[in-house]
Amino acid sequence: MEQDLLKKMLMVHKIQRHDFMNHLQVIYGYLQLGNLEKAKEYSLKAVESVKSYGQFSKIPLPLLQSFLLWFMTQIENSGAVFAFIFEGNWQEWQDVDLELTKLLRELLSSVQERLSANDLKCRLGFLENVADFSLVFIGREEDLNHLQEEKVTSQSLVVVYEKVSSEKLVVTIKPDKNI
Amino acid sequence: MEQDLLKKMLMVHKIQRHDFMNHLQVIYGYLQLGNLEKAKEYSLKAVESVKSYGQFSKIPLPLLQSFLLWFMTQIENSGAVFAFIFEGNWQEWQDVDLELTKLLRELLSSVQERLSANDLKCRLGFLENVADFSLVFIGREEDLNHLQEEKVTSQSLVVVYEKVSSEKLVVTIKPDKNI
Repeated sequence: MEQDLLKKMLMVHKIQRHDFMNHLQVIYGYLQLGNLEKAKEYSLKAVESVKSYGQFSKIPLPLLQSFLLWFMTQIENSGAVFAFIFEGNWQEWQDVDLELTKLLRELLSSVQERLSANDLKCRLGFLENVADFSLVFIGREEDLNHLQEEKVTSQSLVVVYEKVSSEKLVVTIKPDKNI
Repeated sequence: MEQDLLKKMLMVHKIQRHDFMNHLQVIYGYLQLGNLEKAKEYSLKAVESVKSYGQFSKIPLPLLQSFLLWFMTQIENSGAVFAFIFEGNWQEWQDVDLELTKLLRELLSSVQERLSANDLKCRLGFLENVADFSLVFIGREEDLNHLQEEKVTSQSLVVVYEKVSSEKLVVTIKPDKNI
């Protein structure tokens, strides 16, 4: 897993570098045309795009952080369909980095295409005032049913699927206290 | 080793993001002052700085690539003191990524301060027309002698130190064919 994630991080690094170069070239292009306003506007947009990766630094689990950084680079228009709330209680999760990452990898890989196509939205993070990690999926009923049928399980984590409405599925994950 | 390098790559990612935000803010500052020429000049400088990390993508060994990327971020003014020639024969090195990375980590950690202080220069890569990996150190005789005395060894790599002049030490590394 570490070896695989290390390769993924090298890819993230490369993609990010290419994105940076691209941003700088667009800005330089506007400057050469003497278009100060466009250059300013684009600079602010580039800052926002770079900032969006910053939210991951809050995750104190190296495997999970690496996987999510990579996953973000794999989804088109990810800002629109994938949101995170990472301010929460990470304490309980320190020992299950590997298990949690495996679980999210399995779960998210199965919906990667639908996230990219904007058919599905996902919010990942902590539920308000609760230490449980959760994924909230919003999309078509058939897609959500499909997700629920392919239920992902884990040996040391409790995974609960709950359909809260026809368009909303909540997957809650917590460490199994009995293990 | 993989776990350690994964954490290092997350640091590289964070540092790079901060650097890039900084570049964009400087450019935006010049634009707000209406200083088009300075903004153009700085954009080109930023492109060069981002490009300098690109040389590592040529290294087809994930452990070594990760370590060197991280090492670069740890050295101040690294462009001036640390150069690489990575176009070469990587074929023979595929199976010794771990050993080569361990060796370079030991060797480079011991001179990190002197590289940062600009007391020592280092060129890392392939010698011309030879498949051997090498480090060429240029610096004060006492520093080079010190390096030679602390000779780093490896179980599966042959390491040869050769002082070619009072200011130049060449460390050649090759896979041990007898293992």
